[in-house]
Amino acid sequence: MKIGCHGLVWTGLFDAAGIRHSVNKTKEAGFDLIEFPLMDPFAFDVEAAKSALKDYDLGATGSLGLSAEADISSEDPDVVRTGELLLNRALDVVAEVGGTDLCGVIYCGMKKYLEPVSSQGLHNSMAVIGRVSDRAADLGVNVSVEVVNRYESNILNTARQALKYVQELGRANLGVHLDTYHMNIEESDMFSPVLNTAEALRYVHIGESHRGYLGTGNVDFDTFFKALGHVGYDGPVVFESFSSAVIAPDVAGMLGIWRNLWDNSEELGAHANAYIRDKFTAVNTIALH
Amino acid sequence: MKIGCHGLVWTGLFDAAGIRHSVNKTKEAGFDLIEFPLMDPFAFDVEAAKSALKDYDLGATGSLGLSAEADISSEDPDVVRTGELLLNRALDVVAEVGGTDLCGVIYCGMKKYLEPVSSQGLHNSMAVIGRVSDRAADLGVNVSVEVVNRYESNILNTARQALKYVQELGRANLGVHLDTYHMNIEESDMFSPVLNTAEALRYVHIGESHRGYLGTGNVDFDTFFKALGHVGYDGPVVFESFSSAVIAPDVAGMLGIWRNLWDNSEELGAHANAYIRDKFTAVNTIALH
Amino acid sequence: MKIGCHGLVWTGLFDAAGIRHSVNKTKEAGFDLIEFPLMDPFAFDVEAAKSALKDYDLGATGSLGLSAEADISSEDPDVVRTGELLLNRALDVVAEVGGTDLCGVIYCGMKKYLEPVSSQGLHNSMAVIGRVSDRAADLGVNVSVEVVNRYESNILNTARQALKYVQELGRANLGVHLDTYHMNIEESDMFSPVLNTAEALRYVHIGESHRGYLGTGNVDFDTFFKALGHVGYDGPVVFESFSSAVIAPDVAGMLGIWRNLWDNSEELGAHANAYIRDKFTAVNTIALH
Amino acid sequence: MKIGCHGLVWTGLFDAAGIRHSVNKTKEAGFDLIEFPLMDPFAFDVEAAKSALKDYDLGATGSLGLSAEADISSEDPDVVRTGELLLNRALDVVAEVGGTDLCGVIYCGMKKYLEPVSSQGLHNSMAVIGRVSDRAADLGVNVSVEVVNRYESNILNTARQALKYVQELGRANLGVHLDTYHMNIEESDMFSPVLNTAEALRYVHIGESHRGYLGTGNVDFDTFFKALGHVGYDGPVVFESFSSAVIAPDVAGMLGIWRNLWDNSEELGAHANAYIRDKFTAVNTIALH
Repeated sequence: MKIGCHGLVWTGLFDAAGIRHSVNKTKEAGFDLIEFPLMDPFAFDVEAAKSALKDYDLGATGSLGLSAEADISSEDPDVVRTGELLLNRALDVVAEVGGTDLCGVIYCGMKKYLEPVSSQGLHNSMAVIGRVSDRAADLGVNVSVEVVNRYESNILNTARQALKYVQELGRANLGVHLDTYHMNIEESDMFSPVLNTAEALRYVHIGESHRGYLGTGNVDFDTFFKALGHVGYDGPVVFESFSSAVIAPDVAGMLGIWRNLWDNSEELGAHANAYIRDKFTAVNTIALH
Repeated sequence: MKIGCHGLVWTGLFDAAGIRHSVNKTKEAGFDLIEFPLMDPFAFDVEAAKSALKDYDLGATGSLGLSAEADISSEDPDVVRTGELLLNRALDVVAEVGGTDLCGVIYCGMKKYLEPVSSQGLHNSMAVIGRVSDRAADLGVNVSVEVVNRYESNILNTARQALKYVQELGRANLGVHLDTYHMNIEESDMFSPVLNTAEALRYVHIGESHRGYLGTGNVDFDTFFKALGHVGYDGPVVFESFSSAVIAPDVAGMLGIWRNLWDNSEELGAHANAYIRDKFTAVNTIALH
Repeated sequence: MKIGCHGLVWTGLFDAAGIRHSVNKTKEAGFDLIEFPLMDPFAFDVEAAKSALKDYDLGATGSLGLSAEADISSEDPDVVRTGELLLNRALDVVAEVGGTDLCGVIYCGMKKYLEPVSSQGLHNSMAVIGRVSDRAADLGVNVSVEVVNRYESNILNTARQALKYVQELGRANLGVHLDTYHMNIEESDMFSPVLNTAEALRYVHIGESHRGYLGTGNVDFDTFFKALGHVGYDGPVVFESFSSAVIAPDVAGMLGIWRNLWDNSEELGAHANAYIRDKFTAVNTIALH
Repeated sequence: MKIGCHGLVWTGLFDAAGIRHSVNKTKEAGFDLIEFPLMDPFAFDVEAAKSALKDYDLGATGSLGLSAEADISSEDPDVVRTGELLLNRALDVVAEVGGTDLCGVIYCGMKKYLEPVSSQGLHNSMAVIGRVSDRAADLGVNVSVEVVNRYESNILNTARQALKYVQELGRANLGVHLDTYHMNIEESDMFSPVLNTAEALRYVHIGESHRGYLGTGNVDFDTFFKALGHVGYDGPVVFESFSSAVIAPDVAGMLGIWRNLWDNSEELGAHANAYIRDKFTAVNTIALH
């Protein structure tokens, strides 16, 4: 199992210097991989990432949330095309830096919608994700659709919805991406979604209920990690946290990050890395009970 | 203690018939009071409400979330004035129907902001709420500011923020309104916010983490009710739930209600009424332990 | 599914009058069945029970914890024989009153052991339970072994231990009996034991962590009921609670009931009946999510 | 705050070699102090302890559970006298090794009682603990009475009972000792007992619901640590865990340790030390929220 950290824990700016800084810090905190934010994959400095990953011997994945202009669940073919091109470029970035996974809100805009998705919009979303998955298969990359709360998507808010979505597409490298922050809002509990998606579960985000330090909010992490142990999950497990102290202003606005939940990225990251690893150490002993 | 139910459990349309229907159903489900949604207080049929409340012997409160056009945390004086007029009318409606409380997201727009509140905006918000509270005091009505999650306000996301807000205004009839749905996202736990606001706590919303049946999500209700018992809270406790089966389309869009969590309002309401009362019955026995 | 109540909620004395009283009260509180304590099945007034069950139209089951003198996990053949005779009589009582299940700590003494069970003792226990199960099959009665905490058995403290025990015996009418009070002490969580025993789960006890009102302690009931819903359990679900206000002194001593957790059996029982049924009502809506 | 480890995590035998081994291992695992088991304080090798503590630069406390022969809640004056002599010697041991606290089930036998304490027994218990506390004050040692579950005491099963006990005695150096393992069984929740005892809380045991790895059972640790943070507790916090792999047979029998919950003391201890420290690191950030 690979334990990772989202790049936005370290910086809000992902130019060459930001990339190197975040890789360095992710490694120092003890993680195995970094998840690069690829909101704008065309501007991402692949060479900077490749060299930093190599220098610090770190793995990588990539994630993004589509903007309204690139929303593949739109009914507007131009917008959908923009989204597909962006996803393809994000996929290339992941492959070029030697990454393993593309995930996040890649199937619709990551925004507060004001109405439900239309059937044409859903059709568009699935058609693009199907093609992107096929392309990813050729590149040896896994694709997973992140289940997020009602304020960040109007399509996939629960694990069962995501399971249905990926099952209908039926690609071996396409799976479900669960995030504890969102599960705490939308799921019935923290065990069933893992159980229900088991075979299809490809990616996991670990975030606290308010996106601060793990263990300082309301997410029932113990139950979640026991469920991961129960199904024998061994894919990426990536820490995510946002505070107004570090984040880029536009991302802060999109995610509603209005207050400081921490001000020390190093302590936060090291804590999260230890927290996640210690949970698995403990969960592994349950077999003895 | 008065146990109540939000009107939107029963109907999405609050014309005279909708008002009578929701009062009737709230009473039938066993509640003591109904919370009327007063998004548009100018259109609210006070006489219909008065007669229904009298016929069914039910208490009442009123709540609302300000729209962007009436956002008192705006920097635009006209928008702020629009908001104050709307709040004053909502207050009158509460008083006219014999209600006891005005609450909700009355201190800013209930919407996904894209940037933090400005200091002028916060100043405007507090100035209006101060005046509204004074006016409410003359009418014998309590006012409380609802602490909501980051996607519905950029001002009051935690109990401590709300406590500071109301303490600075220092009005005896102005207090904090906590909602378990939002606490599950923003607070560190379900006990401290009650403890921290104790004296200032005036109003309570009971909602599940996904806004469905109580006990089918992730809210730690047991801890919350024990905390209410610990501080001896005896104000209104009002159930709230939203499903795409009942809600008005515009409210659904604003709150992000994309799926059906229930389809039987009667069963849902009766369940919630019993759930809340049974919690208090149980909590009261802790004194014996 | 049948929701039931343990007889000791109502009285500590199970003579004819106690039997009738407990049956009456169990019915009044809304339950479907009563679980009779059969510590001394030879003295149990079958006719009184039959007539009360008929008069009040109530179902029945029976349970017991073996005393040291009838401990079938003993190495002393006389003690084991005493235990088997007692279990057979208890089985007859269940069958004679028209009951469906015999359960409890029927596989060893219900007491604080000072050393682990010996292999001979375990062999004796399994041999007797095998024969009792066969005899029960002829009578149309289910037998289940209750998983209890370390202070009440040195054989079956976890669901997995019990599963192994019943699987080795391989009788269709022999299953596992889980109790939330004990699970809260011995299991890793409240979901896995249900999942792990699923097919073998025959009987469920609902008790709070301190054996008082449901919801006033530390048992994570929501997770447990969600797990029951997940596996589609539809066997008996029986409430158990003990307070020094009602219980017989010798049982109190054996179970360590040193304080009053409640003093009103009627309120307690009605609360528990509503609590359990309301949990299932809620859990059933999860299918909609 | 001092984070400590109970000696029985490392060995079941507390001769000179066992003492040195456990001190060494406690230090290696990262703890600040060791809690010595002083069941037989007359046999405890003070010099071995002093030299080991000095060599490894570790703090110390001492604890015990009285046997039936030394039960100061007995009605037999000889038994009570035996108990008082034993407690005095245990106190001397603590003082002689430079320890700070004497705690545990020092106010009655640590055993499964079969009947409630008598009023004479309670009187005897309090009289002795009063004198022991006074003697401890002269030696600069804190004394605390451990709240344990119904199977290990018939006097102090809840924090409120313990608070009353110590308040009636009114000694400044006498306080309450809470243990999460026992709280999970007897208390209404994990927050209130800390809140209720706050000023009187002198000692804390951290144990999982089944006494295994922290985070693999049902104890709601997050709530407990948040409560410690809320009241600003800064006394000793000591990890306790028992497995049949390490424990002495007689202690295993008394505590009902029938199965292996772990087999690697080093991993267990290091995990617990990190777990406890990481909880406080996280809880400290709540002030920022």
